[in-house]
Amino acid sequence: MYLLEERVKNAIRNVPDFPKPGIMFKDVTPILMDVRLCKDIVQHFEDDINFEVDAIVAVESRGFFFGMLLADRLNVPFIPIRKAGKLPGECIQYTYNLEYGTATIELHKGFLKPGMKVLIHDDLLATGGTVSAAAELVRMEGAEVSGFSFLVNLSFLNGVTIIEKYSTNILSTVTY
Amino acid sequence: MYLLEERVKNAIRNVPDFPKPGIMFKDVTPILMDVRLCKDIVQHFEDDINFEVDAIVAVESRGFFFGMLLADRLNVPFIPIRKAGKLPGECIQYTYNLEYGTATIELHKGFLKPGMKVLIHDDLLATGGTVSAAAELVRMEGAEVSGFSFLVNLSFLNGVTIIEKYSTNILSTVTY
Repeated sequence: MYLLEERVKNAIRNVPDFPKPGIMFKDVTPILMDVRLCKDIVQHFEDDINFEVDAIVAVESRGFFFGMLLADRLNVPFIPIRKAGKLPGECIQYTYNLEYGTATIELHKGFLKPGMKVLIHDDLLATGGTVSAAAELVRMEGAEVSGFSFLVNLSFLNGVTIIEKYSTNILSTVTY
Repeated sequence: MYLLEERVKNAIRNVPDFPKPGIMFKDVTPILMDVRLCKDIVQHFEDDINFEVDAIVAVESRGFFFGMLLADRLNVPFIPIRKAGKLPGECIQYTYNLEYGTATIELHKGFLKPGMKVLIHDDLLATGGTVSAAAELVRMEGAEVSGFSFLVNLSFLNGVTIIEKYSTNILSTVTY
């Protein structure tokens, strides 16, 4: 576990001033070039999932990377959440506040079934705004959030305090 | 093979007037809810790949779905291509023409190595504009396009005639 955390941290690149000045961005894309590391990350999540998962819901677009691998390993459906206007067909949407302005994300209507236990995946937990919105969409469909998984938890931003009302099963491979 | 094509066609939803009036959009997201079908699609690609693949390059965001699974199965790195401004750190970019206006996509500089054999994946081959641009980015890095894979080939749009100059290894699971 400690070893995996170190390996993930070593793979992550710090990119200064992205997406805007003053932000040190954690770039997870180099992880995707390390085949062994990718498999070990998925295995780590699998080992830590001691709750029911009937479907993976992941947030566009970096959430798709390990969201797909997790769905494959757990043998459950994968359902994408995207920014408004990107998903074809009937959707439900949820609008949430950002530092400046708002953002709207969407989920296909009817893909989740009432009572389904859903693992929400994203690459990074920051303030928790986006995944909370994802959790709201899951609940709007009558499904239940059984847990969250992230590659990275930026714990100094306290995202956990925002999302733990949906589920206290919050997994990550590295914490800053 | 025929059976797989039928199963994929049955899973794809036709969404009229998306993203704009008059277009019948092929929505591949229902495929992702069928665990067995996803595995069979990846197996189909694996069986058909009789050329070298050192890395998968996939186009944001729907290309990430099976691009990730393919990279996992083939045990090769996964490298995302995204719209301009989305990838952190140093990138190379390529601008191409759309029906109205232009689009620019980016690839991280230095992630591909000269001489690498690259499989470019996307969910759908239409006119071939985006994947041709992806192929240009691969070549700009000194790497080689060894093949393409798509869930869907809209053959009436003749994308193959545009992309076959990069590689004639063009795989798909369904053709319309």
